[in-house]
Amino acid sequence: MEKILAYIEEKKEIFLNQLIEFLRIPSISSQAKHKPDIEKCTVWLENHLKQIGLKQTRIIPTAGSPIVYAEWLGAGTDSETVLIYGHYDVQPVDPMKLWNSPPFEPKISNGKIFARGTADDKGQLFTHLKAIEAYLAVEGKLPVNVKLIFEGEEEASVSHLDEFVENNAELLACDTVLVSDTEWFADGIPTICYSLRGITIGEITVFGPNRDVHSGSFGGGIENPLIALCNIISKMKNEKGKINIPGFYDDVLELTEEEKVQFRKLPFDEEEYCKDLGISQTYGEEGYSTLERVWARPTFELNGIFGGYTEEGSKTIIPSNATAKISLRLVPNQNPSEIARKTEEFIKSLIPPTVKAEVKFSPGGSPVLVPRDIKGMQAAKNAFNIAFDKEVVYMRDGGSIPVLALFEQILKAPTVLMGFGLPTDNIHSPNENMDLNNFFGGIKTSALFLNEYAKL
Amino acid sequence: MEKILAYIEEKKEIFLNQLIEFLRIPSISSQAKHKPDIEKCTVWLENHLKQIGLKQTRIIPTAGSPIVYAEWLGAGTDSETVLIYGHYDVQPVDPMKLWNSPPFEPKISNGKIFARGTADDKGQLFTHLKAIEAYLAVEGKLPVNVKLIFEGEEEASVSHLDEFVENNAELLACDTVLVSDTEWFADGIPTICYSLRGITIGEITVFGPNRDVHSGSFGGGIENPLIALCNIISKMKNEKGKINIPGFYDDVLELTEEEKVQFRKLPFDEEEYCKDLGISQTYGEEGYSTLERVWARPTFELNGIFGGYTEEGSKTIIPSNATAKISLRLVPNQNPSEIARKTEEFIKSLIPPTVKAEVKFSPGGSPVLVPRDIKGMQAAKNAFNIAFDKEVVYMRDGGSIPVLALFEQILKAPTVLMGFGLPTDNIHSPNENMDLNNFFGGIKTSALFLNEYAKL
Repeated sequence: MEKILAYIEEKKEIFLNQLIEFLRIPSISSQAKHKPDIEKCTVWLENHLKQIGLKQTRIIPTAGSPIVYAEWLGAGTDSETVLIYGHYDVQPVDPMKLWNSPPFEPKISNGKIFARGTADDKGQLFTHLKAIEAYLAVEGKLPVNVKLIFEGEEEASVSHLDEFVENNAELLACDTVLVSDTEWFADGIPTICYSLRGITIGEITVFGPNRDVHSGSFGGGIENPLIALCNIISKMKNEKGKINIPGFYDDVLELTEEEKVQFRKLPFDEEEYCKDLGISQTYGEEGYSTLERVWARPTFELNGIFGGYTEEGSKTIIPSNATAKISLRLVPNQNPSEIARKTEEFIKSLIPPTVKAEVKFSPGGSPVLVPRDIKGMQAAKNAFNIAFDKEVVYMRDGGSIPVLALFEQILKAPTVLMGFGLPTDNIHSPNENMDLNNFFGGIKTSALFLNEYAKL
Repeated sequence: MEKILAYIEEKKEIFLNQLIEFLRIPSISSQAKHKPDIEKCTVWLENHLKQIGLKQTRIIPTAGSPIVYAEWLGAGTDSETVLIYGHYDVQPVDPMKLWNSPPFEPKISNGKIFARGTADDKGQLFTHLKAIEAYLAVEGKLPVNVKLIFEGEEEASVSHLDEFVENNAELLACDTVLVSDTEWFADGIPTICYSLRGITIGEITVFGPNRDVHSGSFGGGIENPLIALCNIISKMKNEKGKINIPGFYDDVLELTEEEKVQFRKLPFDEEEYCKDLGISQTYGEEGYSTLERVWARPTFELNGIFGGYTEEGSKTIIPSNATAKISLRLVPNQNPSEIARKTEEFIKSLIPPTVKAEVKFSPGGSPVLVPRDIKGMQAAKNAFNIAFDKEVVYMRDGGSIPVLALFEQILKAPTVLMGFGLPTDNIHSPNENMDLNNFFGGIKTSALFLNEYAKL
C-alpha cells in the first residue's frame, strides 16, 4: 500500500489538473442547451476510464443522458465485486452574480477548489478513478473486481437509471455498492452515512364553486375550498407533532439506544443551527432530539400551497379551488406505497361533504438502512482511519437517494456511503467547492478501501 | 303624472338611441389606454345633463377619473333635496371571445339591450336623466331639489370619490341619496335593497426559515410555515361555522322575526343555487338559512393563499414563508376598524413560537342598514308599485358599497337603493345586458319617485 499512497502523493498536481479539465465541461443535465456538454462529458469520462486501464468502457445511450460504464474483473470469479456509482452531471449555476469566480473556470483558493460540480459529484467520483489508476500503475492489478457506473441525470427531474438497473442486473451484479456523494458531519470528522429516509409525494386539490365567486354575494352561503384545505392540513398532525394517519408508525424502526448515544456525541450546535436558519427554535415530534427527528423520524411536510388571488392588493373572492403539494419522509422500515395508500385514505376521510377533492399520493423512494457491521462498512471505516488518521463517525441523513433501495432490491447489494464532502461545500449553490485535503485524502481512502475490502 | 308617463312612453325610441350613444363610449376606468374614452364620456354626459335642463353642470377633475355633477334646485330651500349617485365607468370586456356581439356596439335582442355597461351602470343611471327630462319638459320644474353626482372610478381599484365627498359636504348636502346600481331578486319582482354588509380586509404572512430549505435535510427539525398558517386558519372558525375571534359578534344586529319571515317568502331555490355553482350543498353558520347567512351574518373568508412551490410537479422544500389573503364581511352594527383590531389581536395570539408572522387588517367599508319606513324608502316602494304594477320585495345584499356609509356619515343622508337590474344581466361578464322593460319602467319609476317623495 505504501507505494500506492506514495504514487498518489507524487501525482497530486497532475490529478488536480485532470479534475480541472473534467470540471470545465458544463454538464448541466436539467438544461436542454447543455446536451452537447453532456455528450462531451461522457466522451471525456470514457476516455479517462480507458487511459487509467479499465476495460469494457462504454457510453450507453438512454432516453436521457447516457450512462458511462467500465469494469476491471481481473481478480477472478472467486473474488468479490465492488460497484462504484457516481454522477457526472451537475446542477444549474443560477444565480450567476453570486459566484466569486466563473462556475466552469475552476479556481483554487484557501485549500479548496471552486467550481460547479466539485463536491457534487465530479470531484468525489474522480477520487475512485485516481485510486484505481494508482493501484493499476503500482500493482498492475486491483485486489477485488470493480465495476463503475456513472449517470448523467442525478440532478435532472427525470432519471433513466432505475430502468437501466432493472434491465441490466447481470451487467451490474456485485457484492457491494460504493458511493461517494455525501458529506461529513463537520470538517475534520470522516463520516459514514448508514441510513437515508424514503419519500412519498402527493397533492390534494379541493374544489368549491365551479368559478371564483364574489365573497360578498356568496360568502356565508358556501364552503370556501381554501379554508376546507387548511382544515384538512391542520388535522394531519397532533399537538405533539405526531402524524395522525392511522397505521403510519406501524413499521417505523425505532432508533437503538446505542444510536441515540452516538448522535448525542456529535458536535451539533442547536443554537448555531437556529441562527443559520433565522429561526428562534427548532420544532418537531415530541420526545426526540433535532438530529433524531431529521435523521430517523418520518415527517409530513407541505412543500407548496396555492389557491385564489395571490397578486398584490386584494380581490374579494371565494376561489374555485385550492391545492397543497405534500411530501412525507419515511424511515426504515416504512413502505412508500403503503404510506401513499394510507395517506390517501386518511385525507379522503377528512374531506367535508361541502367540497369535492382530488387526492393522489405516490411512492417516491424507499428508506435505506445499511448494517454497520457488513464488510463494506468495515472496509470504509478502516480506510478512513488510515487515510485521515481519525476515527470515523456514523450518521444518518434526512434526505433520500431512491436508487440505493433499487440497488439493494435488484442487485441484492448494500450500499456504502463513503463521502468526502463537507457541509461548507455549497452544493446546489453558488461557489460550490471541495476541500483539497478531502479530495486527495479521498483518493487514498478509495485505494485503501479496495485493499481493506479484499482483506476482510 | 299622466302627462309625464305619456311623454316617456312617446320618447322610448329616442331615449333608447341616446342610451346606445352613451354605451358606445368604452369608458373602462381600470385600463389606462381608455383614459381618452373616460374624458369623452364625461363630456358627453355633461352635455346631456345640460340638454335636459339641469343647472351648474360641471366636470370636476380628480387624481383619477373626473366626477360629473349637475343640479336643479328650483324647488327652493323649503323643499328637500335628493342626491342621485351613479357611475359612468364600466368593467373591462375580457374574455372578448365569449361576447355574442361587440361589447361597445349595443345590440337589441329578445327585449334586452346587450353591451358593456348596460345594467352596470350606464343604463340604470340614464333612467334618472330621462325621468328628469320628462318632468322638466312637461311640468317645467321638478317637485323636489335634485343633485346628481356620477363618478368614473366605481370599477377601478382606486377611487377618489370618498375624498371628494369628504371635501364637498356642502355641495352635496341632501336629505336622501338615490342609487340605481342594484338588481331585483328575480325577474318580475321589483326589489328594494335596504342593507349591505361592510368589510375588513387583511393579510397574514408566516415566516419560517430565512430561505427555502430541503425537506429531507431539515424536515422534522423545524416548523413548516405553510402548516403553521393552515393551523392558524383552521382555528378561525368553530365546527358550527361561528368565528372564534373574541368579541366578534358583540355588535351584530340580529335579524328581526319579520325579516326572517320576509326572506322565507322569497322564491329562493337552494337546489338551483347549488346546481349553478356546481356544489352539492350550501354551507355556513349553523342556525341560519342561506339567504340569512349571505345577507345578514358576518363571514371570515380566505381570498387567496400561497407559499412554497406552486408549479407543476414536485419540489421537496420547506418554504421560507406563506401568505393568506383574508376578508371579513360585516353586518350592522359591526365597526370595520374595531373588527380589524380584534382580528389582528386574535390571529397574533394564535402564532406559535416556532415562526414569526406579519398580520395586518384594515377597515374596508361600513355595513349599511336603511330603515324601511323612511320617506325615501316609502317613495321608492310607491313608485315601483305604480310603474310596474307589482308589490316590491325587500332584500339585503351580501356585498359592500363603502361610499354609502360615507354618504350617511358625511352628508347625514340615508341611501335608497332603487335598482332596475336583474340577476341575469351578466354584469362584470360577457354579454352584459339590461332588460328594456326594466329600462323604460325604470325611467317611469324614477319620475314617480320624485313625485311620491315630494308628496310624503
